[in-house]
Amino acid sequence: MKRIGMLTSGGDCQALNAAMRGVAKALFNSGEKVEIYGFQDGYQGLIYGRFKLLTYADFTGILTKGGTFLGTSRTPFKTIQVPGEDGVDKVAAMKQTYYKLQLDCLVILGGNGTHKTANLLRTEGLNVITLPKTIDNDLWGTDMTFGFQSAVNVATEAIDCIHTTAASHGRIFVVEVMGHKVGWLTLNAGIAGGADIILIPEIPYDIDKLAKKIKERHDGGSRFTILAVAEGAISKKDAELSKKEYKKKLSKRTQPSVSYEIAEELGKRCGLEVRVTVPGHTQRGGSPCPYDRVFASRLGSEAGKLILKNEYGFMVGYKNREIVKVPLEEVAGKLKMVDPDSSIVKEAKLLGISFGN
Amino acid sequence: MKRIGMLTSGGDCQALNAAMRGVAKALFNSGEKVEIYGFQDGYQGLIYGRFKLLTYADFTGILTKGGTFLGTSRTPFKTIQVPGEDGVDKVAAMKQTYYKLQLDCLVILGGNGTHKTANLLRTEGLNVITLPKTIDNDLWGTDMTFGFQSAVNVATEAIDCIHTTAASHGRIFVVEVMGHKVGWLTLNAGIAGGADIILIPEIPYDIDKLAKKIKERHDGGSRFTILAVAEGAISKKDAELSKKEYKKKLSKRTQPSVSYEIAEELGKRCGLEVRVTVPGHTQRGGSPCPYDRVFASRLGSEAGKLILKNEYGFMVGYKNREIVKVPLEEVAGKLKMVDPDSSIVKEAKLLGISFGN
Amino acid sequence: MKRIGMLTSGGDCQALNAAMRGVAKALFNSGEKVEIYGFQDGYQGLIYGRFKLLTYADFTGILTKGGTFLGTSRTPFKTIQVPGEDGVDKVAAMKQTYYKLQLDCLVILGGNGTHKTANLLRTEGLNVITLPKTIDNDLWGTDMTFGFQSAVNVATEAIDCIHTTAASHGRIFVVEVMGHKVGWLTLNAGIAGGADIILIPEIPYDIDKLAKKIKERHDGGSRFTILAVAEGAISKKDAELSKKEYKKKLSKRTQPSVSYEIAEELGKRCGLEVRVTVPGHTQRGGSPCPYDRVFASRLGSEAGKLILKNEYGFMVGYKNREIVKVPLEEVAGKLKMVDPDSSIVKEAKLLGISFGN
Amino acid sequence: MKRIGMLTSGGDCQALNAAMRGVAKALFNSGEKVEIYGFQDGYQGLIYGRFKLLTYADFTGILTKGGTFLGTSRTPFKTIQVPGEDGVDKVAAMKQTYYKLQLDCLVILGGNGTHKTANLLRTEGLNVITLPKTIDNDLWGTDMTFGFQSAVNVATEAIDCIHTTAASHGRIFVVEVMGHKVGWLTLNAGIAGGADIILIPEIPYDIDKLAKKIKERHDGGSRFTILAVAEGAISKKDAELSKKEYKKKLSKRTQPSVSYEIAEELGKRCGLEVRVTVPGHTQRGGSPCPYDRVFASRLGSEAGKLILKNEYGFMVGYKNREIVKVPLEEVAGKLKMVDPDSSIVKEAKLLGISFGN
Repeated sequence: MKRIGMLTSGGDCQALNAAMRGVAKALFNSGEKVEIYGFQDGYQGLIYGRFKLLTYADFTGILTKGGTFLGTSRTPFKTIQVPGEDGVDKVAAMKQTYYKLQLDCLVILGGNGTHKTANLLRTEGLNVITLPKTIDNDLWGTDMTFGFQSAVNVATEAIDCIHTTAASHGRIFVVEVMGHKVGWLTLNAGIAGGADIILIPEIPYDIDKLAKKIKERHDGGSRFTILAVAEGAISKKDAELSKKEYKKKLSKRTQPSVSYEIAEELGKRCGLEVRVTVPGHTQRGGSPCPYDRVFASRLGSEAGKLILKNEYGFMVGYKNREIVKVPLEEVAGKLKMVDPDSSIVKEAKLLGISFGN
Repeated sequence: MKRIGMLTSGGDCQALNAAMRGVAKALFNSGEKVEIYGFQDGYQGLIYGRFKLLTYADFTGILTKGGTFLGTSRTPFKTIQVPGEDGVDKVAAMKQTYYKLQLDCLVILGGNGTHKTANLLRTEGLNVITLPKTIDNDLWGTDMTFGFQSAVNVATEAIDCIHTTAASHGRIFVVEVMGHKVGWLTLNAGIAGGADIILIPEIPYDIDKLAKKIKERHDGGSRFTILAVAEGAISKKDAELSKKEYKKKLSKRTQPSVSYEIAEELGKRCGLEVRVTVPGHTQRGGSPCPYDRVFASRLGSEAGKLILKNEYGFMVGYKNREIVKVPLEEVAGKLKMVDPDSSIVKEAKLLGISFGN
Repeated sequence: MKRIGMLTSGGDCQALNAAMRGVAKALFNSGEKVEIYGFQDGYQGLIYGRFKLLTYADFTGILTKGGTFLGTSRTPFKTIQVPGEDGVDKVAAMKQTYYKLQLDCLVILGGNGTHKTANLLRTEGLNVITLPKTIDNDLWGTDMTFGFQSAVNVATEAIDCIHTTAASHGRIFVVEVMGHKVGWLTLNAGIAGGADIILIPEIPYDIDKLAKKIKERHDGGSRFTILAVAEGAISKKDAELSKKEYKKKLSKRTQPSVSYEIAEELGKRCGLEVRVTVPGHTQRGGSPCPYDRVFASRLGSEAGKLILKNEYGFMVGYKNREIVKVPLEEVAGKLKMVDPDSSIVKEAKLLGISFGN
Repeated sequence: MKRIGMLTSGGDCQALNAAMRGVAKALFNSGEKVEIYGFQDGYQGLIYGRFKLLTYADFTGILTKGGTFLGTSRTPFKTIQVPGEDGVDKVAAMKQTYYKLQLDCLVILGGNGTHKTANLLRTEGLNVITLPKTIDNDLWGTDMTFGFQSAVNVATEAIDCIHTTAASHGRIFVVEVMGHKVGWLTLNAGIAGGADIILIPEIPYDIDKLAKKIKERHDGGSRFTILAVAEGAISKKDAELSKKEYKKKLSKRTQPSVSYEIAEELGKRCGLEVRVTVPGHTQRGGSPCPYDRVFASRLGSEAGKLILKNEYGFMVGYKNREIVKVPLEEVAGKLKMVDPDSSIVKEAKLLGISFGN
């Protein structure tokens, strides 16, 4: 007999339902008696005791559905880490729910923030298994996260659409791609969409070099230029600021995002019409792509297997094409960034893509 | 022997290439000797004599391609209507190119602005046939324009994606849909995407009623609300302003668009998190949907037929499921708007959709 | 107070759920007290009394889902028309269920076969409202049926995929398109997919002329030829047979379908490799396209309105872009076919498409 | 100065153009003077000296296009391996073209058959670099081939479509998936599409166990069953036959493929309606998915890099998320099959998927 608690936390993404279905199918099909409690809206459900006993039917027909049928939220995390404040109470509340329901384990699906809290719960003595969910692919300890490839697809489709309009009008177009503080999503969507220029946080750009590059292109007969710009892209100047100074600068930004700033600067420097498109939250929505469905199902089923073997304290990750278990303390608090000297960046340069630096 | 000039003008959209292919195939397959000159970047190509003699091969393989292989532009139109200024010269320049190439006819693909100029050229004695191109579906004299259904698809897909993230997070989401000054695109994408609220220019909204409606929904247990908002949506207050006052107000707008204003106001009034997504130019890009491919091909082939019969001065339109010819003077300068009392609006209301008024 | 029975019958298609949601929303939002009973698996549920009282929640979140959540079946119809046999009992059984549940009306979603039975029930004194569901678009009395445009999209996507492989290999490809005994689906998908040849039941083909046309194409430098062939396509020879003779011939067919016969004959005559692709049932599955979602929702809501006004005995159809009510007796037993002299066929010919006749 | 010959051979697939663009961009952007000769229709072009000098423009705008702009063919390979027959002449002819054009290297894109010939040319002294193209993912020496993920997407979409119709009608559906003699494509599309049963060549099925499994499912309340069946699926009985006996048996098959045989057998044994769908060649067509675009571009650019460094005799492959060079002699003639004891198969079983054995 196993009693499992399950929750999804942080920004939603594609294949969360597929992953949960994987866990549940592996458990229900094992022959062992299993109870799965689903907590509503992430850690909030655990804190405030909002949950539902789930049946096999709850996990049927959800493989292809975007979002998370349990709901999610970001809020509790913000204060949870601060001992002495109300954060401590929240941890206590979560532990209370856990013990009251006599859970054997919590299955937690989330990204970076979620993993910090998951690891905190582990140090507090709870059994935890996590699954790497994020469109940003920025989780340490795993080559891949689910949601990422689906988000690449959405972002690429946006660039594809922009391509035809950019070519028709002879315009410069900036497509802002999500990805939080890392460039994985922009790098992949940019290559896939045939972007001419890719700006990612890991390679700060120089606005003057960028403008020069674009002018050269148009002088050389190119009719249009497409820039895939990460929402976390940063200029060389800003990258030299201290964290505090940069935050202060951001707080004074009048443009909605970095893409608009870049567009404005390029417009001035190049004398060309520059347009901005922000696919935004569409990148985390919609049905998961087949890659993510398979990947999330595989991870989920392996999580179920670990639970049946009473192996806790791990994130189920992916290394060198094999599913692996990664100790939670190694995952929490770290960011997996794009290495500017990695082969994919070099290959992008071979393809003629400029990183604006 | 026929000598045809062809150009695409105004904002690009899907199925422009399909329509031109339709014209060309009908002409080339007719047995008659035909020369087709393609003008670059809309009226600019006609004005400055930038053109290319096109062959059958130029129209092959373009049925499924977005954009326009001739290029397009909006600029020349702005000043062209002003006699006594450089507008006159432009008309003269266009006539000169027309006569120099000994054209029998101009085939012009465009929207409202384009049709004004096309009609002007007609009154100046040129033979003109036009095709109704716009994602806005706002052209007078035709039930449908090509590009519209493809744009509905892109906008609906955006709402579909937002649906899963809105449901997961329990958020209010505003999706801003294109459509210029009319609500066709928003109305259709909104119904197709299952939006709870649809705001269109033809039905000015009352922000207080809107906030009340959303509060009622959430008090009644709805976890999320999706608003499809036309880029041209307008509040009742603003609708009462004179054109001049409204323009002045718009010029002082600090938000990027009406959606952000609405989001801010609703956030204040409802105390809920409101997010905005703007699919933007993606709505006019990408491969045309099958509906538009068929529709544009049909219109194009009928344009070819008219040319072979020396019937000029018409827009090829669509009325009651038949392709019809509409005198250009009836089309130019008019806008086809959504009638607030039309059956589709009433049906939307039956479905429980609120128009915020 | 209204008591409504609802069922879907015949082959499933896209937007059935959207249409039922439209009916339900219009009824539930009307303020009047409403009970909706859903019958399982078409008329079978009505005959054998298998039903479920449906709530508002049953119609939530189904707008974008393919298939029918009520299930469907084809079987009962076959014998139902034969008085004196068990057909009579079935009608009696259906009436019994209707009166037992004290229904005010049956809402029946279906195609041609379904409408015959629906009309029979009407003549037996039951209140019936029907909705035109079929990917074939062959229902009399309505310009359009829901499911059709979604099926056009699936079939066109198949042709698009085949295009790249046909072009790469220089092959002749036959894509078999559904559509039952009429050519609407093939005609539209064929034009949208850029097929070179379209064969539909309404225009019997001549295999020798077909072979000659293809040889001419390839002699003229065409690298490949794509044929969109309706599953009901028929040769001139076979079209001259009596119904009985043709049935007999079909029963002796060794090939899986007409496409394989045509491929074999063309292979022999042209000396070229001919491949066949049959997208089959995929054409009636998957999420409805935005056009069908809007269309089915509109029809459904108007059905709800008719019920609220106690107007029965109609199919809710579509004529000249308006939703209309069509007396059931006019619909049943008739087939809406493609007119070989219609403008869309003529336009296809202008585009250079051959009908093989 | 580099003179490169380029050709695509074997069945076409998605991202061939993307890969060639990658090679060309890396070469043209290198600063070195480069001439690229494109051979038409695979080895045929090399044999018969049908080629074209390609420019930068030939590789522009082809990233998203399916198929191969050079054309491909399968035929020459069949006899090429037989010394003493006309095969020898063909090799000689290929060498002659190579030397006549003074090529530095041949870039060959293809699958298993193609690689045998490529290796043969290498042993004959030609410089060869190959790229792993196949939707089957059966090439030895690389974790992944381009085309595969795009084909998974098409096959999964077909299963998704079938899902709604299977659920509506309560039917058993067999979806036949490509993949030649290996199960990669079926395994991935089957998991992604939520198939209940997956049959692959590497795990021969037992028709009686299969029938029993389906009966159990339906007795247990399942309304439908979906089988993803590889085109190369084989029964245990047939797997025990000698190659010769099996070939003989295949030659006498009256059904078009194994799926129809299985459907017939299951229909008899289960007493349920079983339908077959064969997406066929659509699986290798259409625009490449973003994953394949990135992957093929990366491989292509690395091939360009190798050429610039005069490193020949390799296939550019993918191992543990890094691009690697694999000696051609290790690749040729081997098949990468699904290991029945691999983790992905075990995970599929955890998900409740049966392999019918």
